[in-house]
Order: sequence, then structure tokens, then C-alpha cells
Amino acid sequence: MLAPPLRQQSLGAGRVSQPPCRRRTPNPNPATQESPHIYTREEVRSHSSPETRIWVTLGCEVFDVTEFVDLHPGGPSKLMLAAGGPLEPFWALYAVHNQPHVREMLAQYKIGELSPEDKAPSTLKTSDPYIDDPVRHPALKVNSQRPFNAEPPPELLTENYITPNPIFFTRNHLPVPNLDPETYRLHVVGPPGGQSLCLSLDDLYKFPKHEITVTLQCAGNRRSEMTQFKEVRGLEWNIGAISTARWAGARLCDVLAKAGHQLCETEAHVCFEGLDSDPTGTAYGASIPLARAMDPEAEVLLAYEMNGQPLPRDHGFPVRVVVPGVVGARHVKWLGKVSVEPEESYSHWQRRDYKGFSPSVDWDTVDFDSAPSIQELPVQSAITEPKDGETVQSGEVTIKGYAWSGGGRAVVRVDVSLDGGLTWHVAELDGEEQRPRKAWAWRLWQLQAPVPAGRKELNIVCKAVDDSYNVQPDTVAPIWNLRGVLSNAWHHVHVHVAP
Amino acid sequence: MLAPPLRQQSLGAGRVSQPPCRRRTPNPNPATQESPHIYTREEVRSHSSPETRIWVTLGCEVFDVTEFVDLHPGGPSKLMLAAGGPLEPFWALYAVHNQPHVREMLAQYKIGELSPEDKAPSTLKTSDPYIDDPVRHPALKVNSQRPFNAEPPPELLTENYITPNPIFFTRNHLPVPNLDPETYRLHVVGPPGGQSLCLSLDDLYKFPKHEITVTLQCAGNRRSEMTQFKEVRGLEWNIGAISTARWAGARLCDVLAKAGHQLCETEAHVCFEGLDSDPTGTAYGASIPLARAMDPEAEVLLAYEMNGQPLPRDHGFPVRVVVPGVVGARHVKWLGKVSVEPEESYSHWQRRDYKGFSPSVDWDTVDFDSAPSIQELPVQSAITEPKDGETVQSGEVTIKGYAWSGGGRAVVRVDVSLDGGLTWHVAELDGEEQRPRKAWAWRLWQLQAPVPAGRKELNIVCKAVDDSYNVQPDTVAPIWNLRGVLSNAWHHVHVHVAP
Repeated sequence: MLAPPLRQQSLGAGRVSQPPCRRRTPNPNPATQESPHIYTREEVRSHSSPETRIWVTLGCEVFDVTEFVDLHPGGPSKLMLAAGGPLEPFWALYAVHNQPHVREMLAQYKIGELSPEDKAPSTLKTSDPYIDDPVRHPALKVNSQRPFNAEPPPELLTENYITPNPIFFTRNHLPVPNLDPETYRLHVVGPPGGQSLCLSLDDLYKFPKHEITVTLQCAGNRRSEMTQFKEVRGLEWNIGAISTARWAGARLCDVLAKAGHQLCETEAHVCFEGLDSDPTGTAYGASIPLARAMDPEAEVLLAYEMNGQPLPRDHGFPVRVVVPGVVGARHVKWLGKVSVEPEESYSHWQRRDYKGFSPSVDWDTVDFDSAPSIQELPVQSAITEPKDGETVQSGEVTIKGYAWSGGGRAVVRVDVSLDGGLTWHVAELDGEEQRPRKAWAWRLWQLQAPVPAGRKELNIVCKAVDDSYNVQPDTVAPIWNLRGVLSNAWHHVHVHVAP
Repeated sequence: MLAPPLRQQSLGAGRVSQPPCRRRTPNPNPATQESPHIYTREEVRSHSSPETRIWVTLGCEVFDVTEFVDLHPGGPSKLMLAAGGPLEPFWALYAVHNQPHVREMLAQYKIGELSPEDKAPSTLKTSDPYIDDPVRHPALKVNSQRPFNAEPPPELLTENYITPNPIFFTRNHLPVPNLDPETYRLHVVGPPGGQSLCLSLDDLYKFPKHEITVTLQCAGNRRSEMTQFKEVRGLEWNIGAISTARWAGARLCDVLAKAGHQLCETEAHVCFEGLDSDPTGTAYGASIPLARAMDPEAEVLLAYEMNGQPLPRDHGFPVRVVVPGVVGARHVKWLGKVSVEPEESYSHWQRRDYKGFSPSVDWDTVDFDSAPSIQELPVQSAITEPKDGETVQSGEVTIKGYAWSGGGRAVVRVDVSLDGGLTWHVAELDGEEQRPRKAWAWRLWQLQAPVPAGRKELNIVCKAVDDSYNVQPDTVAPIWNLRGVLSNAWHHVHVHVAP
């Protein structure tokens, strides 16, 4: 039962600065409105498994998150790393947690507070793991600082067919490792009975150098449009989580062959591990099918050059994977290890993220094993000029953008509408003509169209068609998914027409 | 100037049976309302080129079609076959011409009539080229008798994962040739300096026999839904221009290799010629890229068996091409000749048909060279049960259908809505699990869903997702094209709920 005087006191204190160990958000559970239970760190530590229940602390507060573990967006295993201890070292790494709705969710699980002698900051030293991240270009629009995720603004994105390195979109999952090119080694696990390779950069340079232009796109590109329809969990990417570079390196098939790997009849996978890792030493990881890795025509690279320069640190220095036509998440950066396995990578990012689901699936019903990991991406396009909300001159309007499709499928047409999709114009395709079946890079496009007389506003839309005649869906709601990936509905830009 | 009395006389005669050589449809050109000019067949014959102008006859009427030649839906070359002579032998072959709107169009070009002595039927004997076509299964819904085009009704289409031969959809462009398996020869042109092959059926049987399950789909499947939005030129296919069979034959790559062909650096094409031909001897033809033809993993077949039987005559007896994952039009039937060429087939059906265009393109603006020939098809699905207009019981409804994608991309999910696309259910996928990258065959699917209480009608919708996460577009208007191909918008079925 509620203790009214206490409660009123609590409500009355709502407007003044609260002591650090008082609840900061309204708590729907009346039980915790009473005097808090007091626990020692020792007691908390003993609750670190489902059997003993799973407790964690944040500041001076103690939470029983047993029921939440399976609902954790980052996966149960990530939350279990903090079982029996403080959340701070992990939240420092995944700054996405520092949001009001996360604290609100957590507040529901509060069971008490730490004893006064334990209220001192955790003895686990939380040095900033991002302190050594590189300096970035100021033009980048930052979606998350820790880990660093940023995109070029639309007005710069299609200024160049090749995206300059400093504004190439950056999608990091962890702090940027600071690797010494002299001591760097790539470990390539050999087949049973074969030889494993331990390759220095100089060793990699000895493989035939292969150079190709490839567009990389994050699965979350244009997620912000999904969010407008309904909330999702993920970074708020605009249309800039896509960029194009000239990559050079050794072909993965050559390196795998050197280690003695062959294409096998059964489905196998090439697993990549990055040298970026979380506090427990878990590295970023992903995999691609062996068939793609071994196919010379698929041109999968172990890249050490980006636009004629050594890879920038944010893009995987000294070596990253480049998998043409495939989602960015498989292009593992700061590559440390390559192995051939009978199953896909067991990495969280392969199995519990970067998958698409029906709009009917929510966090209560999602079954990650039911969907394939995203590999090839669907056809995509967006308008980079004019910008949403801009005022254009009457007479003629110039519209620019990009279009790309996964799997080496070339973009064959971009349709542009000035009236929300009722009538269409065919845009002019710029940029490099792509090779058949190896159209790894985007096409830029533009259209100069007369502004219909008397129009005060234009609802500009673009949609692309690839050479399998795949098209983009009309609207975002039917492709909405709980992670906000694969957002490739028609792109809209609304502008005013100057009188 | 008009001669009023004559015109009134003409109008007055409108309700009585007209003599065979009088205009049957209203003619917008007042000049021809006067006494017709009279020409001899000899005169007509002298008008057979753009320089002399192009005349044709139909019955007793003479037409100057010079201005129409470039607008001819079947291509200028096809119309030029009749230049200076009668249309009947060609119209007998392409029965699509026997429609009121075609006669109306032609009427605009009337310049006169044949002289009385030439009014006798053309001396060019028009025996029915379709007289030898095989007998067909009565269940087939016939869209065109000459050439024969027919599809199974939806209720039979997904009764079996493998479509029985007698109801496999049939898409013929010309009369069915009657070929003797004893004397049949397949001509495979060798490379310069190599050997050409002349293969009997027994020779083909000596190549390793390869057997795969492949779904074939016509580019015009579901065209009728495009027509509902806006008229197109093409046969009115419902959702049944798709079927699945177990095909067996020699791999094309083995046969090409035997003839000495190799994959070359420059883009080349394998051209196929059928033994079906029009009165001038022009055969049906099509081509695919050499890279696909030579890739063992692409499994292109010279098939001589369909579901364990010799090919039925309607499906290419004795040998047809089967190109998994690719539009039906490239699966050339009654195969007579295979050659490797630097360019795509010059066939009308490769270059002037089976291409996709923007909805903004019409017959006045179309540039066939601007679009790639359709090869791989986009993701597709349709509802086969219940049928449109049916009444379903309240309580629970069972919904069934098919889903397929081109290029070997597997269908990974089918979403079904009962409310026009506002909310979605995930259907259960039946049929054979497909091999990665070689998902040549469809998935059948079904959903049992509760009918929301109080609903009198259901707007059932399906949409599929393939393993590149390509999706179907929401609506048909934005993918409408003048030939009505690639109709893969969400499929809708409206049903009533029994009270």
C-alpha cells in the first residue's frame, strides 16, 4: 500500500534537484514508492544467473532485470556481461543507452538501492574506451559519437561520384582500434590438414592487387523515414549511410586458395573477425557464404587502399573486407581473422541484428532465427537536391540523387515525379556505366523538369529500377520492421515554389 | 468538301447489312466518304516501300499505311512483310488483329477499294497455319487460340507443387511445329576455327543428364491487372502465366564446351532459334548472356524431359531451352539453332518486346533500345485461394498462393493482409526448400487467419520478400508500362464474409 505522506514528499521534491541516489523518473510500480530495500555490492554480485536472478546496478540503484534479459535489443548475451555488477562500463561503450526512454524502461525493474558504504562509485574503473578515436571531418552529420556513426549531408553526398574519404559515411560498432601497420597480422585459418596463414601487410601486398569501385550502404540507411511512421530501435540515419570509393587490395579468393581452401559441395561460410572489441574482448564479426568468397567474379577484397590512400582509421586501417553488392555490415573493418566454418558467424551482428522482419513482428514476437541475415541489398534511390523544405524557383527545377542495387544488379532507370507519384519523368543517369552482373557502384542521376505553372509546392519522388526489374516499394509502412533496416520506399522531398 | 446527299445515304445504310466491300466502321476521314478510288492489285503491289508509299489490302479495301508502319505494335518489319499485298495471311497467324479497335485504326488509312476484277479472294492461299496445333486440356483458360496462349485457372494452379504437364501455362508466339524426333537435329555453331555440332536427340542424350525443378513465368503474367489501370498491348493474362516443372536435359555449358566455346572477356550472348516460324520463315528467337550460359551453377538446360515425360508439343518437343530464374521468353522451344554472338539476338522478341519502360512512356515516345531486355524477373506472388468475389465463412479463412523470384533468389517471407495492407500476417511457406543462390522454383504458401468479427468483406493482399530483401511494389499504376509486362504489385482478392 502507498504511504501518502512519503509520496507527497516525493512529488513535492519533483521540481528540485534530486540527490543522485533518488529515482529520477516516475516509477509505475507502487511497491518501490516505499522506503527502498538496501543491498550490498556483495549481494548484487551473487545475482548473476537466471537461477539466482539477474541483478545490475546503475549509480546507487539496484535492478532485477531477469525478465528483461530476453527482451534486450542488443541481445541477452550483451546484457549478461553486466550481470551482478554495474551497467556503467557497458553504457560507456554503447552510448545509445543514455536516453530517457532507456532509463524509464530500467526504472520498472528497480528493486532497491545500494547500502551507504557501497554508494561510492564502482571500483571498476571506466576509462573512456573512445578516447583514442580519430578526429573527424566537421561536415559529417553525427548520429552517434560512441561508437562513432556519421553521414555526409545530402548536399555533399552526390557532389562527387567517388565519395572523398573524409566524408565517407562511418558506421562503427565499437571504439576504433589503433593498429600498428608494422606489427599487424591477419590470421587466415587453413582447412583441416591445411596450413594457416599469418599475413603481414607486406605479405598481403604480394597477392595480385585488385581494384574496383564499390558502393557501401548501411542496412539502416534512411531509417529516419521508418521512425517517422513508427518507432524503431537503431541510429537515426538520414539518406547518407551510403558512399562510394575505389578500393584496392588482395582478392579474398586468392588468399583463401593460398591457405588451401576450396569450394565445397555443402554450404559453408567465411567468418570475419575485427580487431575492434568490447570490454570482454568480444570482437565485431560477420560472415558471407563461401560460394561468394571463392567466386573470382564476386570480387570480394581484403582491401588496404581506399581512393588511392591507405584506409583511414575509421574505415578499417590497415585492412578491411569489401564485399561488393552486399550490406555494409559484412565489410568487416580492422580485419584480424578469417576462417571457413560450416555455419554463419555466431556474432551478435550476424545472428541477432541486420535481419528483416514483417511489420507485424515486434520485440515480443521476434524470432531472429526465422529470417536470413541480410547479404545482398534491394534496389535503392534517394533525392539529394533540392532539400526537403527548400524553396525552388518557378520555371525549371533541377533534381539530383543516387540510385544503387545490391548483388551487382545495375540500375537501369530512375523515375522522378513532381506530383507525389501521379506522373513520372525519366531521369538522366550519370556516373560510370557499370559492368554486367558486376554493377557494384551507384549511378548518380539528375532531371531538369519544368515546374508546372501555378504550383506552390512540389512533392518530388524518386524510384529506381534495376536490371532484374526490381523496383522500390511505394510506401514505408508495409516494409517497416522493428530494427528499421532495409528502408527503400520511394524517397520524397517536399519543396515550395517561389512565387 | 462533303457531298451531303451521299453522306446521308451512307448514314442511312448504317443499320442494314453492308456489302462485303463497304466500310464496316465509321470513318473519321471525310474524303473517303465519297465514291471510293479504285485500284488494281497490280497498282497495290507497286506500293511496297517508303519511297513509293506502303499499301496493303484487307478484303476489298486498300490502305496506305506508310505513316503507321513505325507505330505497328509488332514492329515495322512485321508489317512490311505485307507491303503491297493482302493482310489476311498475316492476320491468320496473329489473330490478335481480329479485334474491332484494330479495324478502326486501319480504317483511318483507307484510300480506296480494289477493282471489281480483283475483288475475288487473294490468290495467296491462306491455309490455316494452326491446323496442326495439338489438342489441349479443357481446364486451360485460353487467352488466344492463334497462336495458342492459355493458363491454368487459379484454383488448379497451386493444387500441386509440380504443375501437371497438361495444365502448364502455354505461351506460343507462332504455330506449333510438328517435328520428327528421328530426323530432328540441333545445330550448334562452333567458334571461329572450332567445330559446329549437328546433334540428334541420341547425341543430346549422351551428355550428362541434369535434372532440376524450375518455375517458368511469362513476362506478361498478371497483365490483366495493368489493363484495369490503363490499356496495354498484350494478351490478358490473369495470375496463371507461371508454372513449375521438373526439367531434365543436357546442360548448355556442356554442349557449348563440346563445340569449343569458352567464356570470353568481352560480353557475348548465346542466341537461340526456334523451329517455329512465320510465313516468311522468320523463326522465334531470343538470347541470354554467355556468362550465364557457360556458368555450371546457372544450370541452363537443353531440356528434353518435362516431369519425366518427353516434352509435350506445346512445350517445345523435342528440345527447349530452360534458363532458371529468367523470364519465359528466353526459354526457346522447338530449339533449332544455338550460336554465340557479340550482340544480343536480333529477334523482334529480344529487341522490340519483353522490355520494361517508365509509366510515362507511350507508343509515340518509346525507344526500345533504351531499356535492357528482360532476363531475371523481379519478386512475385499471388493469391490462388479464395477467388475474387467468393464468399468465405466467418470464423477462419484459409488463404493460399504462390511466390517466386528471379535470378535464383529464394522467397524468404510472404506477408498477407486481410484489411488491404494495414496489418499483416506471416504466411507459412510450403513446397520444397530451395538451394542457396539456385532457388529456381516457387514456394507455395498458406495462411489460416481468423476473420475479424463483424467484417462483411475482406480485402486480402499478399506480398513476398526474396533473399536480397527485394519486395513487391504496393500498387500497379507506378509500374504500368505500355506492354503490360512485369506486373508484380501486391495481389488483391476481395471476398464477402458469410453472415
